[in-house]
Amino acid sequence: MNINKQHFRTIWPDPADSSTILIIDQRQLPHKFVIESLSSLDDAVTAIKDMHVRGAGLIGATAGFGMHLAAVQAEPGAVDDALKTGAVLLDKSRPTARNLKWAVDRVLLAAGDGKNDAEKKAIVFHTACDIADEDAAFCKAIGQHGLNIIKEISRAKQGQTVNILTHCNAGWLAFVDYGSATAPIYAAREAGIDVHVWVDETRPWNQGAKLTAWELQQEGIACTLITDNAGGHLMQQHMVDMVIVGTDRTTHTGDVANKIGTYLKALAAHDNNVPFYVALPSSSFDWEIDKGSDIPIEERSGDEITAISGLTGDGHIETVQLTAPGTRALNYSFDITPARLVSGLITERGVVAAERDAIHKLFPEK
Amino acid sequence: MNINKQHFRTIWPDPADSSTILIIDQRQLPHKFVIESLSSLDDAVTAIKDMHVRGAGLIGATAGFGMHLAAVQAEPGAVDDALKTGAVLLDKSRPTARNLKWAVDRVLLAAGDGKNDAEKKAIVFHTACDIADEDAAFCKAIGQHGLNIIKEISRAKQGQTVNILTHCNAGWLAFVDYGSATAPIYAAREAGIDVHVWVDETRPWNQGAKLTAWELQQEGIACTLITDNAGGHLMQQHMVDMVIVGTDRTTHTGDVANKIGTYLKALAAHDNNVPFYVALPSSSFDWEIDKGSDIPIEERSGDEITAISGLTGDGHIETVQLTAPGTRALNYSFDITPARLVSGLITERGVVAAERDAIHKLFPEK
Repeated sequence: MNINKQHFRTIWPDPADSSTILIIDQRQLPHKFVIESLSSLDDAVTAIKDMHVRGAGLIGATAGFGMHLAAVQAEPGAVDDALKTGAVLLDKSRPTARNLKWAVDRVLLAAGDGKNDAEKKAIVFHTACDIADEDAAFCKAIGQHGLNIIKEISRAKQGQTVNILTHCNAGWLAFVDYGSATAPIYAAREAGIDVHVWVDETRPWNQGAKLTAWELQQEGIACTLITDNAGGHLMQQHMVDMVIVGTDRTTHTGDVANKIGTYLKALAAHDNNVPFYVALPSSSFDWEIDKGSDIPIEERSGDEITAISGLTGDGHIETVQLTAPGTRALNYSFDITPARLVSGLITERGVVAAERDAIHKLFPEK
Repeated sequence: MNINKQHFRTIWPDPADSSTILIIDQRQLPHKFVIESLSSLDDAVTAIKDMHVRGAGLIGATAGFGMHLAAVQAEPGAVDDALKTGAVLLDKSRPTARNLKWAVDRVLLAAGDGKNDAEKKAIVFHTACDIADEDAAFCKAIGQHGLNIIKEISRAKQGQTVNILTHCNAGWLAFVDYGSATAPIYAAREAGIDVHVWVDETRPWNQGAKLTAWELQQEGIACTLITDNAGGHLMQQHMVDMVIVGTDRTTHTGDVANKIGTYLKALAAHDNNVPFYVALPSSSFDWEIDKGSDIPIEERSGDEITAISGLTGDGHIETVQLTAPGTRALNYSFDITPARLVSGLITERGVVAAERDAIHKLFPEK
């Protein structure tokens, strides 16, 4: 997608030297656009853990390239060991994201076919590139399937603006390109449909305020920032036609782990007959866990709630304290939206009910 | 209640000169404790409109004293006119708060009995003082009635900690003393019950993070700050035993206008069988409006979402920008929780179902 009308992905190998991986440091957005170099496995782990990169697909792609950096730096004869170490460190860098383990496992499996260090390294690099390319392609396909839903709403509203609410950032910044929740929105714009997006600010990390609002503005999509508290009222006032969110992990039974607060929006959508969709590439499905309540929920530092960074009047980024000294805060990053509240899952293969049988029918190989 | 172990109310006449009214400037909390003087009707209107004071009961008390300031400054023979002007300006200073109009009307009605300027001024002052005293007394009574509910939960949990979630600040800072939602919590502490409070930060103005967390800490009540997004997950995890919130206006049919986001918590409480109570003095009832959707909902500046104030490392209060330039934000201050989601209303006369007949039975004079 575009930044200042120039096309970017969120992660890519340095064209001059593929042993360096380039990312956009998302902690500094929207105030500063900074490209960061990752040169080692540790760099990749830190980038994931400290949220230089975040979002289901991008965490997966960074894990893939993290395995590549581990292999590149391995001593002669030690590529397998390096990959094993990489897998352990990357797997535990964030607990809820499904794409992480999915990408790591895919690289490990592929590397097994390499007969020697050089072959293994080449396979790992190409697998990491494939993961990134496929992520972009799957998101593009999600966009086309989601477009059909938006088209129908636009038709029912006789061409009036379609108002879409989203929570957190499941935009292209959360993937390699296009995004999951935003892909249908970009596709609708291309199809000439009048869309407007309600962007939840998404406390505490403010992915909506910092990332989603910014990326939609860069793409020229009309959007309005709201607090996380506001969505229910807007739905009661008939100001929301549909909700689309992403997911960090969805069980094969249709329970959805996504950014904390998603469940509250799903309840409000249900109470107001607003369709509630979850957009995801199949890499975000968990094929083993049956109940959403068994998905591990990350707990992050309470400091993310009690302090916040922003731009001062004289243009530097400053962190300010929001609370009295000694205020204790608890910071769970995700919640579980039960399948019963989900109108449908928008995948790269089509839209499917959030039900075990329907999901398995669409992905019979699993 | 106490600040640094010294007792304060949120508003009181200057003991040396009752033509000056003193308030705590709540915009500066918890970073600075500033007492502000109001010397004119305009001061009172500004204090309400710009949220130096806020909260159902305190807005009512400030309106009462605002009428007093209008009367005090009236030219000879012009007290009636001054009160009429005061009523108009105060009534429109914030649109959703019921106590505002209630207090203004009460002062106007009482002043009608005055035979001359001096009598009218005396009546207005005493009525304003009565409104403030009554607010404190009603909150204290709410505390006793709410205590019975907490006692029952504590008994059912065999004395384990009772976890209470609250949204916004319906603490003593929102009233003259005790608070509505917090009064039962303070009463529970006095009764030796182990309570812990989950404090929603309450974006965008952060009443929870800035005021509720601070006031509970000042009173030595265990509390944990959470984002507005977190309550649903905590309820799913059985970490919330009850919800108590305040209200800016409740219809005589039981629909509740309260800080934006309250509706989402009520939905989550309903979905998880968590009791959801609203604490209010009868001055917050609207006896004319039948449907919550007819209550006017205040819209404030989007700047309250896109920028935030906090304490810098070197100890001054600074406002930082959270979003990209040009980000549009929509900022509704309240939402409506339908009566069907409310377990009960805790009033100064007792706990009552959120239903027209039950409410009228408890307040037969209305």
